[in-house]
Amino acid sequence: MSDDQKIDEFRQQALDYHANPVPGKIEIALTKSADSAADLALAYSPGVAEPVREIAQNSENVYKYTAKGNMVAVISNGTAILGLGNLGPLASKPVMEGKALLFKRFAGLDSIDIEVKHRTIDEFVDTVANISDTFGGINLEDIKAPDCFEIERRLIERCDVPVFHDDQHGTAIVTAAGMLNAIELQGKDLKEARIVCLGAGAAAIACMELLIKCGAMREKIYMLDRKGVIHTRRDDLNEYKELFANNTDMRTLEDVIEGADLFLGVSGPDLLEPEALKLMADKPIVFACSNPDPEIKPELAHDVRDDLIMGTGRSDYPNQVNNVLCFPFIFRGALDVRASEINDEMKLAAVEAIRELAKEEVPQEVLKAAGVESLTFGKEYIIPKPMDPRLLPRVAKAVAQAAVDSGVARIEMPENYMA
Amino acid sequence: MSDDQKIDEFRQQALDYHANPVPGKIEIALTKSADSAADLALAYSPGVAEPVREIAQNSENVYKYTAKGNMVAVISNGTAILGLGNLGPLASKPVMEGKALLFKRFAGLDSIDIEVKHRTIDEFVDTVANISDTFGGINLEDIKAPDCFEIERRLIERCDVPVFHDDQHGTAIVTAAGMLNAIELQGKDLKEARIVCLGAGAAAIACMELLIKCGAMREKIYMLDRKGVIHTRRDDLNEYKELFANNTDMRTLEDVIEGADLFLGVSGPDLLEPEALKLMADKPIVFACSNPDPEIKPELAHDVRDDLIMGTGRSDYPNQVNNVLCFPFIFRGALDVRASEINDEMKLAAVEAIRELAKEEVPQEVLKAAGVESLTFGKEYIIPKPMDPRLLPRVAKAVAQAAVDSGVARIEMPENYMA
Repeated sequence: MSDDQKIDEFRQQALDYHANPVPGKIEIALTKSADSAADLALAYSPGVAEPVREIAQNSENVYKYTAKGNMVAVISNGTAILGLGNLGPLASKPVMEGKALLFKRFAGLDSIDIEVKHRTIDEFVDTVANISDTFGGINLEDIKAPDCFEIERRLIERCDVPVFHDDQHGTAIVTAAGMLNAIELQGKDLKEARIVCLGAGAAAIACMELLIKCGAMREKIYMLDRKGVIHTRRDDLNEYKELFANNTDMRTLEDVIEGADLFLGVSGPDLLEPEALKLMADKPIVFACSNPDPEIKPELAHDVRDDLIMGTGRSDYPNQVNNVLCFPFIFRGALDVRASEINDEMKLAAVEAIRELAKEEVPQEVLKAAGVESLTFGKEYIIPKPMDPRLLPRVAKAVAQAAVDSGVARIEMPENYMA
Repeated sequence: MSDDQKIDEFRQQALDYHANPVPGKIEIALTKSADSAADLALAYSPGVAEPVREIAQNSENVYKYTAKGNMVAVISNGTAILGLGNLGPLASKPVMEGKALLFKRFAGLDSIDIEVKHRTIDEFVDTVANISDTFGGINLEDIKAPDCFEIERRLIERCDVPVFHDDQHGTAIVTAAGMLNAIELQGKDLKEARIVCLGAGAAAIACMELLIKCGAMREKIYMLDRKGVIHTRRDDLNEYKELFANNTDMRTLEDVIEGADLFLGVSGPDLLEPEALKLMADKPIVFACSNPDPEIKPELAHDVRDDLIMGTGRSDYPNQVNNVLCFPFIFRGALDVRASEINDEMKLAAVEAIRELAKEEVPQEVLKAAGVESLTFGKEYIIPKPMDPRLLPRVAKAVAQAAVDSGVARIEMPENYMA
C-alpha cells in the first residue's frame, strides 16, 4: 500500500469510527433504575421535590443528590481546533466529544461538550459563567490566543468551580514533567539553562510560565513568534508576549539557538534545521511538539546530535508529550476534594507526580500496551506512557493533596483516597 | 404506619434514590471503543481531524459524525420549579436530570440538563442561543410566566434547532388529547363548549391556545388568575393574559362556572368547591391538574356529579394528564426528521396520535404495568397510560410526518420509520 493509500485508509477509518453504529462518541446513560412507575415517582414528580428542597436549603447538597460533582464540561468556540485553525464551534464538536471520551476513559469523569458561538469575549465569558453551576468543573479547549488568556482569567474569577484551559496548562504540566526529568538526566541546572521557545501561542506561553515556576529564569528564555525573537524593542506585542520580551539584539532562531540547553517547539513542521541543532549546547534537550509533523524529525535530530534528549507529540516515538497524562487526573483530584480552583500548587504537584512515575519500574501491562520489551528511566523514557493505569491514582492524589494543603479544597480528601 | 410516617418514608426513599450508589441520575457513557491506542488515535488526535474537516466543509455533517442529532438539552433557570416556585437554577438540577432520565427512558434520546443563572431575559436568551448548536433540540423547563413566553419566542427565532417549552406545550398537548376524547364521550361540541380555566400561568395559557387551535372559541373561555376572572376592564394584565380578556361582567369562579361544560384547573389544591361543580352544565368535564393535590378530589367530585368525566395530574386516579405522554416522543419525531422547529401542525399531530391510542385495545403488558384488569376507552380511560410502549412509535411517527408535511423537516422520514 502506498503512503497515500494508507492516509486514505486511516481517513476513512476515522470517519467510520465517528459515524457507526451511531453518530458520535458519547451518550447519556442512567445511573438509577427507571423501569417501574415507582422508580419514576422517585426520579421525577413527586419524589424529585425532596432533593430540590434540600439543595434550596443548602447549595452544597447539589453534590449529594445530582451528577454535578462528577461532571466536567468541555467548552470551546472552535477558534483554534487542533492544528486546523479557526473552523468555528460546530466543527470543533468531534474534538470536544473526543475530550469527553478521554475524561471518561481515563478518569471515570462524566464529561459533556458545549460549543459556544459568540461575538465578543464578554459574550463568551457571560455564556460560560451563566451555565457553569451545572458542572463540577470546566475544561476550556481550542480557544485561540490571546483571547484564551483573558477568557480563562475572567472565568476563574466568576465561576465557583475549577476552570482549566487544557491547551495551556495540560500541555505545560506534561512538558514541564518531561523537561525536568530530561534536565536531571543531562546533569543540567534549570536555573542556568538557556531556553528557546519556538512559538508564542497559548501552549508556548503557558509552558514557559510554568517552567519559570519550576525554577527557570525568565531572562534566559528566548521566545519566538512568526516575526522572530520577541524582544523589548518590538511594538507589536500583546501583553502576554510582552512578559517574554528579551532585552537582546538577537533576532532569529539561528541567533538564539547557539548555546541553548533547551528547545521547545510548539510551532510547525521542520522549523528546526539540523544545522541549528548543531549549534545548541552540550547535552541539549529538544521537545519538538508540533503535531503531526515535529519541528525536526527524531531520526534526523539524533543523526546530528548523539548527546540529545528528545520529545515529540507523537505516539510512535519515545517521550510523547501528551496532555492525556494530565488533564483527566488533575480534574479527578480537583473534583474529589471539591477544589474551588486549579491553582499553581496543584499544577506543580501534577508535574512532580508525573515526573516521579517515570522513574519507577514499569508494570508488564503498560509494556504490553506500549508494545515494548522494557522501559527504564533514561533518555528514551522521561515521561510515563499515556495508557499507564498508575497515572490516575498518582496524579489525582497528588493534586487533591495539593488542593487540601493550599486551602482551596472544600471537603477533606476521602479516606484511603486512590489507595 | 401513620400518614406522617408514610410521607417521611417516601421522602427518605426519594433522597436515597438520588444519593446512592452515586449522586444524581445520569452519567456519560461511551458509544465507541476506547480501549487501545489505535482506538484513541481515531477518537482523538490525529483521527478526529477528519470529521472536523467534514463538518467545516458542510455543517450538516455534524449529524453524521457527532452525538448532536440525538441530544436534547433540558434547560432551566429554576424560576418555577414544579409546584415549589422560584428556588433558583441550582435547586432545579434534580428536576432537570429527572427530565433527562425520562427522555432517555421513554424515547432513547440522550439528554443533559443545563441550569442557567442570569440577570435579564436578554442574558438568558443569549446564553441559551449561544450554546444551542451543541444540541439537536432544546427543552425549556420550569421557567416562570410571563418570562417563558418571550424566552421561548426569541429562542425559536434565534436557534437552528427545535425549542420547546414543555410546561406549556407538553401540558397543552396531553390536556387537549384528553379533553377532546372527553368531549367526544360526553357528546359535546368543542365549538359550543363553555370553558373555565382556573389559573393563568404558562400551562393554562398554552392549554387554552391549543384548545382554540382544536376548535374551541376564544370568547367562550373564561380564564381566572389570583384576582378572579380575566376581563376587558382589567388594567393589570400582561400581553398574554390580555388575549383571554373576556368582555363580561362576571368576576368570580362561582359566576363563570355556572353552565360551564369544561373546567381546567392549573392552580392549587381544593379551589373547586363541590357546590361550584354542581353548577356546571350536564355531562361536565373537569381536569383538576394541580399537583399533588387537585382542585377537587375525584371522590368528592364523583359524589356530587355522576355524569362527570374527570382527569387529574396524579397516577393513582384514572385519566392522568402527564407530560411524559408527549415530550419524549415529540422530540423523537422532530429530531428524526431534523425538524427546524416544533410547529402547530406537529403539536396537533401529537394530540391526535395520543387521542387515537386511547381508543385502541390495550396490550397485556400495559395493563400489568398499570396494575389493572382492563382498560377500555370510556370515562375512566380517555388518555393512554404513561408506560404504554405504543406511544413512542405512534406519537413520534405522527410528529415526524407532520414535520415533513408542513415543510419544516430537513431530511426525509427514515424508511420504515417506527415500523
